[in-house]
Amino acid sequence: MITIIEYINISGSFVFAVSGALIAMKRKLDPFGVLIVSFITAVGGGTLRDILIDREIFWLYNTSILYAVFLGSIVAMIFKSNLNFFDKPMFFYDALGLGLFTITGVQIGLENNLDYLICIILGTVTGVFGGVLRDVVVNKIPVVFKKEIYATASILGGLLYIILMNCKIPNPYLQIIPIFFIILIRLGAVYFNVSLPSIYKDKFKHD
Amino acid sequence: MITIIEYINISGSFVFAVSGALIAMKRKLDPFGVLIVSFITAVGGGTLRDILIDREIFWLYNTSILYAVFLGSIVAMIFKSNLNFFDKPMFFYDALGLGLFTITGVQIGLENNLDYLICIILGTVTGVFGGVLRDVVVNKIPVVFKKEIYATASILGGLLYIILMNCKIPNPYLQIIPIFFIILIRLGAVYFNVSLPSIYKDKFKHD
Amino acid sequence: MITIIEYINISGSFVFAVSGALIAMKRKLDPFGVLIVSFITAVGGGTLRDILIDREIFWLYNTSILYAVFLGSIVAMIFKSNLNFFDKPMFFYDALGLGLFTITGVQIGLENNLDYLICIILGTVTGVFGGVLRDVVVNKIPVVFKKEIYATASILGGLLYIILMNCKIPNPYLQIIPIFFIILIRLGAVYFNVSLPSIYKDKFKHD
Repeated sequence: MITIIEYINISGSFVFAVSGALIAMKRKLDPFGVLIVSFITAVGGGTLRDILIDREIFWLYNTSILYAVFLGSIVAMIFKSNLNFFDKPMFFYDALGLGLFTITGVQIGLENNLDYLICIILGTVTGVFGGVLRDVVVNKIPVVFKKEIYATASILGGLLYIILMNCKIPNPYLQIIPIFFIILIRLGAVYFNVSLPSIYKDKFKHD
Repeated sequence: MITIIEYINISGSFVFAVSGALIAMKRKLDPFGVLIVSFITAVGGGTLRDILIDREIFWLYNTSILYAVFLGSIVAMIFKSNLNFFDKPMFFYDALGLGLFTITGVQIGLENNLDYLICIILGTVTGVFGGVLRDVVVNKIPVVFKKEIYATASILGGLLYIILMNCKIPNPYLQIIPIFFIILIRLGAVYFNVSLPSIYKDKFKHD
Repeated sequence: MITIIEYINISGSFVFAVSGALIAMKRKLDPFGVLIVSFITAVGGGTLRDILIDREIFWLYNTSILYAVFLGSIVAMIFKSNLNFFDKPMFFYDALGLGLFTITGVQIGLENNLDYLICIILGTVTGVFGGVLRDVVVNKIPVVFKKEIYATASILGGLLYIILMNCKIPNPYLQIIPIFFIILIRLGAVYFNVSLPSIYKDKFKHD
């Protein structure tokens, strides 16, 4: 179990670091700025989760996660000239990280015997808040609050995990199914330009 | 004592969730974006307080607070078409939440035998930082830093609580008086358009 | 040892409070807004460090730090009319705070037997994140992510401390040398307008 979570943390950190670096480079930050934004994006959500449940911060005694962040950030900086090449993979990386991290968050909540509702929130915090913090530090409204289904994918994926667990689906399907589910929802939403039904009517049209 | 704090946490969470949702809807966020901003507004201050004094996060084992947040957020979304109707109550909700949360923060500081100065800071953190975090994530300068007396009301209310406590005023007056005091200062400041005496002279006039 | 860290915390808090207040006043915040931004700037980095390693928050039982913050904020507000006079010292204050706080962060990491890499990160968090939080709350892109060498100075200073320690350089030189090193790098970078070699080529020229 621990090895699966560790593997997810490392690969998720790598992909979120790439996604963070790409957004930081769009703002033309300097190399260390890019590195710090990568770091915040990759470990921000999990760090907040660990602070909330008063658990040892997951990267504090596990430097392999930090090397994954460095690697992801540097890979993104080296291949920056092929940024067009990265443009689509960026969505995929981000969706993959969202899926991986959400499920780790839910799992850690369950291991701490927390309420299912809190577990889903911890999954969303883990999956989504790295990106929220990234957007806050580069001074834009978090993409999660915009139209494309993002937090929604994380919340529904966490819910699916809880349901599958209660159906006694075994490992690794218990993890793999909701991770793919989250990735599919996220990619499908962007591909088909789907968003949640708007709660704003004509009243707001001229804002 | 615990029941009073719990009641305050629940009702304060509801009113802050409404205030957070209303601001999120002004930015036309999607429903889950609105929900997350409600959540950050409602529990952000108390969460930061609990992290600072290494106390169990108040909503982690108390899902009734989360239901209050959901309810507040959904009520605000349903009655959004009556947003003009909400415009004035919003100030009142916000002021009420400020009063309720400030006093809980001070009280929790006292229960942990902290210095009076720290207790007042914890009260201000609890009352004000939900709103600060809300404004930071929707990418505007926190209203607390603007002209209308806001943090000032929280700080003075916390100070009044400490004074009343040393005068041995009994419960529930000990709580109710400073809560009303904070609401009155806040509403009075907005109503009479009062702000702190400016520290900026003509030097800054043409900025 | 404890007294050195305490002295550094107090003087660093004062200088960062001044720097925070000056930036807050450029945004014409009200006096309590200025005070809160001073507070966030001065204690934000160290607070985040203490939360990450689950250590008692350094100002929670040490109100002398808070008085230093109040003093720094009020001094800045009183001498605001001489803001031109402050313009250059601001860089110096900030650089001094960066040096002082970075070294405390590294030292606290070492005392907790953390990996050298983590110690350097904690030094950077302590030195840099007060300023990051300051810029985030006043709604601008953190200066640390911009061109002038800032986080770079902190990271290199932390690295130098680790090297000097392994060379068995005694106190107080072990602290003083990297602090001066950080200040020199920071001031030199601003004075000579040096920045990290750009990672952006003509591709980005027309952004």
